[in-house]
Amino acid sequence: MSLLVVGSVAFDSVKTPFGEVEDALGGSATYLSTSASYFTDVSLVAVVGDDFPDKHVNFLKMRKIDVRGLERVPGKTFRWKGQYGFDLNEARTLDTQLNVFESFKPKLPEEYKDADVVFLANIDPDLQYDVLDQVRSPKLVALDTMNFWISGKRDSLIRTLGRVDLLFINDAEARQLTNEPNLVKAARAINSYGPGTVVIKQGEYGVLLFHSGGVFSAPAYPLESVFDPTGAGDTFGGGFMGYLASTLDFSEPAMRRATIMGSVMASFNVEDFSLNRIRDLDYKEIENRYREFKRLAHFDDLPA
Amino acid sequence: MSLLVVGSVAFDSVKTPFGEVEDALGGSATYLSTSASYFTDVSLVAVVGDDFPDKHVNFLKMRKIDVRGLERVPGKTFRWKGQYGFDLNEARTLDTQLNVFESFKPKLPEEYKDADVVFLANIDPDLQYDVLDQVRSPKLVALDTMNFWISGKRDSLIRTLGRVDLLFINDAEARQLTNEPNLVKAARAINSYGPGTVVIKQGEYGVLLFHSGGVFSAPAYPLESVFDPTGAGDTFGGGFMGYLASTLDFSEPAMRRATIMGSVMASFNVEDFSLNRIRDLDYKEIENRYREFKRLAHFDDLPA
Repeated sequence: MSLLVVGSVAFDSVKTPFGEVEDALGGSATYLSTSASYFTDVSLVAVVGDDFPDKHVNFLKMRKIDVRGLERVPGKTFRWKGQYGFDLNEARTLDTQLNVFESFKPKLPEEYKDADVVFLANIDPDLQYDVLDQVRSPKLVALDTMNFWISGKRDSLIRTLGRVDLLFINDAEARQLTNEPNLVKAARAINSYGPGTVVIKQGEYGVLLFHSGGVFSAPAYPLESVFDPTGAGDTFGGGFMGYLASTLDFSEPAMRRATIMGSVMASFNVEDFSLNRIRDLDYKEIENRYREFKRLAHFDDLPA
Repeated sequence: MSLLVVGSVAFDSVKTPFGEVEDALGGSATYLSTSASYFTDVSLVAVVGDDFPDKHVNFLKMRKIDVRGLERVPGKTFRWKGQYGFDLNEARTLDTQLNVFESFKPKLPEEYKDADVVFLANIDPDLQYDVLDQVRSPKLVALDTMNFWISGKRDSLIRTLGRVDLLFINDAEARQLTNEPNLVKAARAINSYGPGTVVIKQGEYGVLLFHSGGVFSAPAYPLESVFDPTGAGDTFGGGFMGYLASTLDFSEPAMRRATIMGSVMASFNVEDFSLNRIRDLDYKEIENRYREFKRLAHFDDLPA
C-alpha cells in the first residue's frame, strides 16, 4: 500500500492575473507526492541542487513522504518560470533551467523496489523505462508525459507505454500522440500501445476516464477564485493514484472514485499559489468536497 | 403545455472533414422546434422566402409542429455557409445571406399568445423584446443569443434580459457579455440582469447549469463519430425546453434532467448532417441515451 513517485522537484516563478510568486516550491513529483500523501505512503525519487533548502525537505517529511530517494547533488535545482493570462488554461513558459535535472538518472533505493504502485511523472521516457527495470513486480504502473516527449522521443515513449497500465495525458497531447482528433478513437489507439486505462485531462472542463468497463466523465469544480493552475494536473494525478494505492482496488468503480478524488485535490490546489493550499488540508475538507462533486454531477433518472 | 419558438429557418451549406451538404434545412428555430417536438407541442414563428419547398413544411407538420406562425414572403430564404476543421468546436462562416430574414418582424398568431413557455432563439434582441410584448403571461421565458448581438446591441440585449428567466449562452459569450473571465462570477452577473437560471454551453465539454439551487455540471457524450456540429446548441436548447414544457415543472431537479435531455438530443444531432439524425428518432432511443448519460456520469459515494 505505497506509491512510488519519480519526477521533478523544482522552483517555480509564476505570474497570474491575481498575483505572483518567485522560486516557490514546485515540480511534478512534489505536487504528486504531496497530493498522494493524504491517502497513502509515498516514496519520492527526484534530484535537487545544493541550493535546495532544508525547510522544503522538512515539509515533505512532515507529509510523511519517504525522501531517501531525493538525491542532492552539486549545482542548482531545476527552475521554471511561467505566466498565465485570464484564460488560466495554458501557461506561457518564460524560462526553463534544467540545471541538475539535466543529468538526472533515477536510482531507486533498495527499499523502494517492492513498490506496489508506481507513478512515472513527466520526464524523459527512456528514464521512465529505466525506473521500470528497477522495480520488482508493481501491481499498477501509471505514466504522465507531455508534448515535448511526444514530438521529440515518440519511439521511446511508445516503448515505455508497452509496460504501463494507466496513462495520464491532456486532450491536445492525446490527439498529438495518436494523430486522431476524436478522443474516443485516440483513447482506443492508446490502449493498443499498452495502457488499458486512459485518463484524459481537460483542464477547467474536467476529466474523461476510458476504462475497459466504459467511459466516465468527471466534472471540474466550478471555482469562483482560481489563483494559480500550476501543478493542477500533477495534484490530480497524485490524488488519483494515492487513492488507488490506499486500497489496491483497481476496479472500474474504484477508478471512478479515484478520478473524483484527483479532481478534489486539484480543485484545492488552484485556490492558491504553489502548494500552499494542499500543504495542510484536513481530511474532512477533502471528504466534504468529494460530496460537493457528487451534488455537482447528480441528476435523477427519468420518472417512470 | 406548449412551447413557442421564435427564430430563424434557413438553408445551410456545411463542409466538415467528413463530408458536406448544400442548401440543407437549418436555422435555429428549425433545430429547436424539431428537438422539442419529441416532448411537447411546439408553435413556430419564423420567416421563409418563396424558394422554401413544401417538403420542409411538411416535415415540420409531420413532427406536429404548429406552422401557422411560419410566414412565407417574396424573396429568398436565409442562407448560411460554413466550414469546420478537425476541431469541430468552432465553425468558420464563409457566407451569410440574410435575405427575407433581414426584415423579419415576428408577429404571433392569436392562438400562440397564451403560450406557457417561450423560447426566443438567437435573433435581434429588440425583436425578442417585441415578441414578449405579444405573449400574455408566459410561465417561463428562455433566450439564446450570440457574440454578434452582445457586441452590436448590448443595451437592447440587457433590456430584453430583464424579462427573461433562463439564458442559454456559450462560455466565450458569457465572458464577453459580463466582462468576467470566471464563469461562476459571470453567471452571477447574468443573474443580476434578470435571468435566474443560466445555462452555459461548452460544446464538446458539456454544459454548466447555474440555478438558485446550485451548480450542475452535465457531461457531453463522448461520441466516436461526430459528423456535423451545426445546430447542436439549438438542438440542446430544444430538448431542454421541450422537456421542461412537457411537465411545467421548473424545479432544480427538473432543470437538471432537462439539461441531460438537451444533451441527449444534441448528441444525436451531431451524428449526421443537417437535421437528418433527429428527423425521426424513436423515443426509446432517447430514453436509452439518457440512461447512457447516467452511466457516463456515475460515481459512488466514498465507502464509509
